[in-house]
Amino acid sequence: MTDTTPDDSQEQVYRKQGFGGNLGLGRRPALLIVDFTNGFRDPDAFGGGNIEQAIGKSVGLLALFRELRLPVAHTMIVYADDGSDAGVFAMKIPALKTLTRDNPQSWIVPELTPRDGELVIGKTQASAFFNTGLTAWLTLQGVDSLVVAGCTTSGCVRASVVDAVSANFRTTVASDCVGDRALAPHDANLFDMRQKYADVLPRDEVIRAIHAAVGGKSPA
Amino acid sequence: MTDTTPDDSQEQVYRKQGFGGNLGLGRRPALLIVDFTNGFRDPDAFGGGNIEQAIGKSVGLLALFRELRLPVAHTMIVYADDGSDAGVFAMKIPALKTLTRDNPQSWIVPELTPRDGELVIGKTQASAFFNTGLTAWLTLQGVDSLVVAGCTTSGCVRASVVDAVSANFRTTVASDCVGDRALAPHDANLFDMRQKYADVLPRDEVIRAIHAAVGGKSPA
Amino acid sequence: MTDTTPDDSQEQVYRKQGFGGNLGLGRRPALLIVDFTNGFRDPDAFGGGNIEQAIGKSVGLLALFRELRLPVAHTMIVYADDGSDAGVFAMKIPALKTLTRDNPQSWIVPELTPRDGELVIGKTQASAFFNTGLTAWLTLQGVDSLVVAGCTTSGCVRASVVDAVSANFRTTVASDCVGDRALAPHDANLFDMRQKYADVLPRDEVIRAIHAAVGGKSPA
Amino acid sequence: MTDTTPDDSQEQVYRKQGFGGNLGLGRRPALLIVDFTNGFRDPDAFGGGNIEQAIGKSVGLLALFRELRLPVAHTMIVYADDGSDAGVFAMKIPALKTLTRDNPQSWIVPELTPRDGELVIGKTQASAFFNTGLTAWLTLQGVDSLVVAGCTTSGCVRASVVDAVSANFRTTVASDCVGDRALAPHDANLFDMRQKYADVLPRDEVIRAIHAAVGGKSPA
Repeated sequence: MTDTTPDDSQEQVYRKQGFGGNLGLGRRPALLIVDFTNGFRDPDAFGGGNIEQAIGKSVGLLALFRELRLPVAHTMIVYADDGSDAGVFAMKIPALKTLTRDNPQSWIVPELTPRDGELVIGKTQASAFFNTGLTAWLTLQGVDSLVVAGCTTSGCVRASVVDAVSANFRTTVASDCVGDRALAPHDANLFDMRQKYADVLPRDEVIRAIHAAVGGKSPA
Repeated sequence: MTDTTPDDSQEQVYRKQGFGGNLGLGRRPALLIVDFTNGFRDPDAFGGGNIEQAIGKSVGLLALFRELRLPVAHTMIVYADDGSDAGVFAMKIPALKTLTRDNPQSWIVPELTPRDGELVIGKTQASAFFNTGLTAWLTLQGVDSLVVAGCTTSGCVRASVVDAVSANFRTTVASDCVGDRALAPHDANLFDMRQKYADVLPRDEVIRAIHAAVGGKSPA
Repeated sequence: MTDTTPDDSQEQVYRKQGFGGNLGLGRRPALLIVDFTNGFRDPDAFGGGNIEQAIGKSVGLLALFRELRLPVAHTMIVYADDGSDAGVFAMKIPALKTLTRDNPQSWIVPELTPRDGELVIGKTQASAFFNTGLTAWLTLQGVDSLVVAGCTTSGCVRASVVDAVSANFRTTVASDCVGDRALAPHDANLFDMRQKYADVLPRDEVIRAIHAAVGGKSPA
Repeated sequence: MTDTTPDDSQEQVYRKQGFGGNLGLGRRPALLIVDFTNGFRDPDAFGGGNIEQAIGKSVGLLALFRELRLPVAHTMIVYADDGSDAGVFAMKIPALKTLTRDNPQSWIVPELTPRDGELVIGKTQASAFFNTGLTAWLTLQGVDSLVVAGCTTSGCVRASVVDAVSANFRTTVASDCVGDRALAPHDANLFDMRQKYADVLPRDEVIRAIHAAVGGKSPA
């Protein structure tokens, strides 16, 4: 099945050139939850669109990774109080600089609160990988593949997925666990990621793939 | 002016949240030409769409950077003959592995042939920056901003622009000097880049901006 | 003059092979102060040797950069309370994990307290550059060269200097502003850095070089 | 046993502060051979000291990794013919720029010639990891630990080991498979690496550790 609504001829061009191969999961996938924070839930800050629903769907995905004792990493955008670590990304989107450590808008939403032993990355750029300790942590955890949830699909999720692939983690995007403030960019980026970088599957198919990959029992 | 055809309400959501600020160029911009190779020109390989036109438009842009003695970097996708450096990106798009050093499809198109002193990056991933010497070279050249041409808009250009911004180079995409095999992803990615990462301007406006930034005379 | 006590024949081998060239400073040097924290001052924690004296000498160097309004970056080693971001480096030196955000041993020494606008990097590895925002910040500041103070010479200073050079910042180590818990490794690493990576000069020569490079007046 | 000749009191300072923990190997170690090229063997170029002996000892180590079908990566320093990718490291050591792709001095020594499927990294900096595809390749290979041979101990080996640790690969240096043009820096850097970054063991102990870690039979 497909989650995006691509133009047929566009699909054909990509298929003819051999894009869109399947990756699958490895035996030790990790879950990466990108920027599901209060500010990115709030339609008056950086949220809106289908982000609320994606948060809701992600709760079950996180529960599964915890149950299977698989690694979980969370990201949040955080800038220093004095703005000393803000750069070009924050010139493009100046409101980002309000996301300081003490601003509740920077904090991860309550239903996905990180637990001890889960990595929490404070980042100032779009990608969860760029100049962060994420790759090194995944190496320490023996991770071979990644499931991605979070927001926004067209921003920090896309940037993180591209880097995950460049870092050679086979990557699956849970299509209904990622959200965006506007739906056309959400769909366009799911199309790009499916063609060039990742498997893109709805959460329930991802859950089946995880069980198959790590040898756990199917939920029903 | 705008080069993309976004849905109005989508524009409004982004404007309301303060996206899409202008960056401008610095006093020492470099030109990055991404993957304008024979294989990405060829519609039977990885090309098609508006890539041919974008190559044509880029010739004049390259000439200007050379005339002003500003730094120029080119990228090409190249894999080892034995495939030893192919990874997840090449699992997703297996035909990439044919792009070995001796395959003319890997080579930069004749009209944009690199000159001595211009950097030529052989890369195995989408981004021109990921695990390459590009940032360090730009540092050595004293570069503060970047103009980007190349292909594809939705692939290696987008990935490179996101990393350029994360590396804190103010970035301008020359909208008619970037091309893609299919136009809907081209447009969608110009929209994303304009909102979140870069200035997006047609070549002739970029040329005027360069003259203004580096103090050269206007062409007419 | 030399600050190290190398064996003569060893100097000769390196000289014969063309090592040890001079780099000089550029027009916009930044100051990097590595890990001058309470814990690395304390001989009962990670300190001792000539670290105390190096802190004392660094006070005047920092004052000069502030007076000339040149960029200043500080680093401190900080691990998450739950140890989630500790890796192989902390396996090798387990006591590092005590350096959490709330532990005063992690804090920068009072006489070098960072000011608003100076970058403060919390790091979990030896190098100030590895997976941190330092390079991107130096790019944003238009920096072309680096003066390094801090500790330990044989640990985090050496690792940071190697990365600074790889990132193409011309680097000068202020030899009496870097310190180590034991003197033989201090000397051996100054030798290595002088031969392969950096200019190594006592503080007062560094100060003269800065004045010459940025066009300020000589102090006397 | 120890391979270095540290000053006793220096050992004591490090022991008191809890340095020098053991790391061990994981179940899938890779072999990294750093810069064992003709030019680094040649005492009239960049070689001398104990490098020749270290090459000799490394032959058996490489044979073991091949026999056990464990991943092997080689590095060589290579600069572009026009010097376009030379930077600060090559300012410090100008002779490095002679190491172009067509210069036999750049090539890996005959007895360690890479085989198909082994990664060969051309690098312009000291570290095998800095802006190269090494980490991503190790991830793809499912590697959890690293054995390091090569030269020079005080240069590219040391830089690579520091980065390996920062990337969270447990690292073992085969002390008689690494060499340097002068012996005092060789010893000093083995001391530093053993205290702060890696296990440092002679080859035959490394071989026993590999057999123990991957479950192969002991050679005798």
